[in-house]
Amino acid sequence: MKCRKCGEKASVNMRQHKLALCREHYLEWVPEQAERFITKYQMFTHDEKVLVAVSGGKDSLSLWDILVRLGYQADGLYIGLGIDAGIGYSAESHRLADKFALEHNLKLHVVDIEKEYGQPIPVMSEISHRGHGKPCAVCGLTKRHVMNRMARDLGYDVLATGHNLDDEAAVLFGNTLSWSMEFLLRQGPVLPSNDGLARKVKPLCRFYEREMTAYALLRGLEYIYEECPFAVGSTSIYYKEVLNRLENDRPGAKLTFYLRFLEARQSGLFVASMNPTGHLHPCTNCGQPTSAPDLCSFCRLIDKVAGQQSLVSNL
Amino acid sequence: MKCRKCGEKASVNMRQHKLALCREHYLEWVPEQAERFITKYQMFTHDEKVLVAVSGGKDSLSLWDILVRLGYQADGLYIGLGIDAGIGYSAESHRLADKFALEHNLKLHVVDIEKEYGQPIPVMSEISHRGHGKPCAVCGLTKRHVMNRMARDLGYDVLATGHNLDDEAAVLFGNTLSWSMEFLLRQGPVLPSNDGLARKVKPLCRFYEREMTAYALLRGLEYIYEECPFAVGSTSIYYKEVLNRLENDRPGAKLTFYLRFLEARQSGLFVASMNPTGHLHPCTNCGQPTSAPDLCSFCRLIDKVAGQQSLVSNL
Repeated sequence: MKCRKCGEKASVNMRQHKLALCREHYLEWVPEQAERFITKYQMFTHDEKVLVAVSGGKDSLSLWDILVRLGYQADGLYIGLGIDAGIGYSAESHRLADKFALEHNLKLHVVDIEKEYGQPIPVMSEISHRGHGKPCAVCGLTKRHVMNRMARDLGYDVLATGHNLDDEAAVLFGNTLSWSMEFLLRQGPVLPSNDGLARKVKPLCRFYEREMTAYALLRGLEYIYEECPFAVGSTSIYYKEVLNRLENDRPGAKLTFYLRFLEARQSGLFVASMNPTGHLHPCTNCGQPTSAPDLCSFCRLIDKVAGQQSLVSNL
Repeated sequence: MKCRKCGEKASVNMRQHKLALCREHYLEWVPEQAERFITKYQMFTHDEKVLVAVSGGKDSLSLWDILVRLGYQADGLYIGLGIDAGIGYSAESHRLADKFALEHNLKLHVVDIEKEYGQPIPVMSEISHRGHGKPCAVCGLTKRHVMNRMARDLGYDVLATGHNLDDEAAVLFGNTLSWSMEFLLRQGPVLPSNDGLARKVKPLCRFYEREMTAYALLRGLEYIYEECPFAVGSTSIYYKEVLNRLENDRPGAKLTFYLRFLEARQSGLFVASMNPTGHLHPCTNCGQPTSAPDLCSFCRLIDKVAGQQSLVSNL
């Protein structure tokens, strides 16, 4: 297999695009494509300040690398979740995020959940009884809150996350199997700024997971290989497997599924007038928009965690 | 496993419904359910004349059996496609449709495609070059035309087909993977009467395929076991396999996927004002509605087949 651009030996063969490229041209191609998607979906401009959510994994580190190479004003945000699971998951991911920032002379904001809110994610999850014994629901809620808060407090225009096509297609697949309207209406490369929340964007949403792995490897990025230990057995990984089988039988199936969905929505398949979020009010504690009349879900969680702590210290 | 109604040994266990029934109560349950769906989706009333498309397979024969037991005015329509494929497929399916009609003293209309249009389906397909070497596209087009024509000419109010949940979920799955708006907007248990075409209904659309197999077996219906030989390797069978894997991992997944789709559409997920069929005119030859300005697809097909025949006889 030869590189389509220079005829040298190809490093990456993308059946779904009928395209093979050598290392050098692959490392050019990925940022070019990312730039194309950023422009096409009007994610942000060179004048805007971007906050990249960095987990230490291949996707978010590649995203940060790409945005900086493209000349965007992109700082990082690392959220320390306090997940150890016998492999020092959070410690290692923090080290790798730090290392990347240092090597590239970039600004990385760090929020440590335990320091800030009293408990690490797994304990907060146990105390709250949310999420059927898994911390994923509490983790998602917390990360969303912290990302929104940091973007607002530090004056960023836009929040960028490293979700790739496999992530997006799996979520879409799940929402489609259950025809969850609220989520179908919100899913896309851009979630517009709303009630004081920064715009959210996913510049990697059209890259296959394996394309991002190839990018990180060929670029020589050091990233954490392990998935979060709590993700094992999750529904989203199950849907990824189903989609991988479809993709394997019909190369391009995953991309087609996602893109046709975006096109269908764009051309008016869904009812535009439906307001998926309903009426929002500012949370009386943190000020972030919520559909609850008083405290938002996150502040209720933190209340519960704090209550449990004072209960323990009173024993 | 015991029958929920009488405590005797169960013959059929339906994990997806958490319901097990003995033979006797299963044979009661299926028509009761069918009646419930016919009423719920307003398919037809006891005053209307129903034409059941009968292929000789388990679904259509069971459907006919159920409708007659429920006291509906249901006659049959058998369409002889002229498919032999070394197993006498059409001959055997015709024999079984006839046998059922005779044993139950019912009226069966028969249309033989070769006698009526000069060639059997496989030859029509070869001549037309439609459908990528498979006769399925020509077969579908022809069956739709003949069903519509017979319903109109013989004064039936409604056309009923034996599509089961597996059929419907597979079609929905395919249309969803490609987000084919036109088809998503049309799919459902009832396609209303339109431009002189009879209403089309699918009373078995909420029964799993294996539920219909169980019904046919327990009722002692003699039906053709073979799938149409041309269906092997089709996309719809591939999607059925994918859905069967999902169903196997999560019992009820297939039914949930289909029902939530119907609910979402009902509650306005899709744009109601989109006219999926566009402007229709009567075909200048057969009078059936078509989006083409002159002849409909079927009449163009028959023109081509006739042209080829005269070419052959002129040699």
